[in-house]
Amino acid sequence: MTFPDIQAAAERIRPFAQRTPVMTSRRFDAQAEVSAFFKCENLQTGGAFKIRGATNFVRSIPTGQLGRGVVAYSSGNHAQAVAIAAQAVGVPATLVMPEDAPRSKAEATKARGARIVTYDRFTQDRVALGKQIAAETGATVVPPFDHPWIIAGAGTTAIELLEQAPKLDALVVCIGGGGLISGCSIAAKHLQSGIRVFGVEPADANDTYLSLAAGKRVEIPQPATIADGLRSPMPGEITFPIVQKYVEQIVLVTDDEIRATVKFLLTRLKILVEPSGAVPAAAVLFKKIPPGVGRVGIVISGGNVDFELLASF
Amino acid sequence: MTFPDIQAAAERIRPFAQRTPVMTSRRFDAQAEVSAFFKCENLQTGGAFKIRGATNFVRSIPTGQLGRGVVAYSSGNHAQAVAIAAQAVGVPATLVMPEDAPRSKAEATKARGARIVTYDRFTQDRVALGKQIAAETGATVVPPFDHPWIIAGAGTTAIELLEQAPKLDALVVCIGGGGLISGCSIAAKHLQSGIRVFGVEPADANDTYLSLAAGKRVEIPQPATIADGLRSPMPGEITFPIVQKYVEQIVLVTDDEIRATVKFLLTRLKILVEPSGAVPAAAVLFKKIPPGVGRVGIVISGGNVDFELLASF
Repeated sequence: MTFPDIQAAAERIRPFAQRTPVMTSRRFDAQAEVSAFFKCENLQTGGAFKIRGATNFVRSIPTGQLGRGVVAYSSGNHAQAVAIAAQAVGVPATLVMPEDAPRSKAEATKARGARIVTYDRFTQDRVALGKQIAAETGATVVPPFDHPWIIAGAGTTAIELLEQAPKLDALVVCIGGGGLISGCSIAAKHLQSGIRVFGVEPADANDTYLSLAAGKRVEIPQPATIADGLRSPMPGEITFPIVQKYVEQIVLVTDDEIRATVKFLLTRLKILVEPSGAVPAAAVLFKKIPPGVGRVGIVISGGNVDFELLASF
Repeated sequence: MTFPDIQAAAERIRPFAQRTPVMTSRRFDAQAEVSAFFKCENLQTGGAFKIRGATNFVRSIPTGQLGRGVVAYSSGNHAQAVAIAAQAVGVPATLVMPEDAPRSKAEATKARGARIVTYDRFTQDRVALGKQIAAETGATVVPPFDHPWIIAGAGTTAIELLEQAPKLDALVVCIGGGGLISGCSIAAKHLQSGIRVFGVEPADANDTYLSLAAGKRVEIPQPATIADGLRSPMPGEITFPIVQKYVEQIVLVTDDEIRATVKFLLTRLKILVEPSGAVPAAAVLFKKIPPGVGRVGIVISGGNVDFELLASF
């Protein structure tokens, strides 16, 4: 995994992923005492950055194999991205989604023509289920984060952000399995070696935080955080060493801080951000990031949230 | 009021008002059976198009007079815009706001250093109150819509929209007092004489609809629609003849349709639009616009809405 892989991914996904806007907010800056640049992947095709990795992956599968379709397991955004990427190349997609995935995500995935298989995320193993379907159908598994093609696609986010907002002091990115921060770190450090990279996890889904402290991958019980996209219980095999190498520090935010940040971004910036997508902004707004950071790039990773959940905040 | 007035306004407000983005939505288009281009004034400075007229007005006041400050009466967005425009030139602003104005709007206005005077919108006359304050202080009244400087400022919205989305079949704009649609009509018809202009009012605030039918300005009882920015009970003296000349038809939308459209724009486009701002999109989404319209420009006039109100939708 090197910068040229991410550059190649950027070329490969160009017609299919949006170059999302970067927004700023006078009020956010005043409250957080920074100059923040929000990379708005909530405005991305499919409502999240996931289309970048999914498209790069699907378009990297050898042609003969691709025809047998793809299968993925995901809390929603990755599933929707895989459905879109598969539809774009005209191959069947099967998505393994938790029974309690946000309704908006399940519906959006169905609308892209994919077949959905549900599972109980507290009792069933989605990875095993995905592999079983792949074995039966010959479909290729599109992993949610722990693969070089996925990481390279995700990293294209940081290339764009640094073009749109150059000379950042720091980049703040959420961590679920670590695909987004891995790709973004490699890209950002290549383009601007002095940039500081901070990871943010929900306090209840602190597997990477604990893993960094332990010096090895630690698995935690299934997290129940409101940030449904960050409930991965363990860092990836490929992503973890990248996080160890490039991420200066991981900070934690509470679900209350996440909810407050969703509301802030909604009422001040007028954009809808899902709980997982608001996690890095929460870290900056609640001043969890170490001092000395002025110009800060904040990746808003997605915006898919059910209205009913939002209304309960 | 001619196109050069709007061009001059565009020059005058350039450093102070944003060139807001134009968004599109595959899902909106599929459901409404159009190609819609949303001019996102909810992302404007102050969260609404009102900064355009207010800035053009304040910067057109002769210097000697300007020093004595400005006064305005408004349900909120105009007040906030006047506060911002006054703060930018360093003169005092007094705002006459209804006691039940959305809290976010009142707070945002205060944050801009303005003095707020509240009134009861069912028993008190805000215009008289504004004039009284002006007489006492020597401040200039900045009217909310019925003035050439305000109309010219508002019209700059359409110049930008037609640059960003050329060759539109139609333009759909909400009507409160008629300032926005007046300015936008003059600009749009000058730039593209064949463009069709449709006005939209809440069914409960149909003063311009009734006035067009009657051939003269009709006043209705104080409307109670959820679209708080469109509660003006009567078209303006200056705006009404412009509406008569340029607007092909006025269509009406219900409060339920407005709420549904706010939710659609929120969960699909990921943008927060206030009820008034969603009114033209509601007309297109619920197919109130006559047939034959393909490429349609929809002005999203503002995004200032309290979270608590939104959560009740």
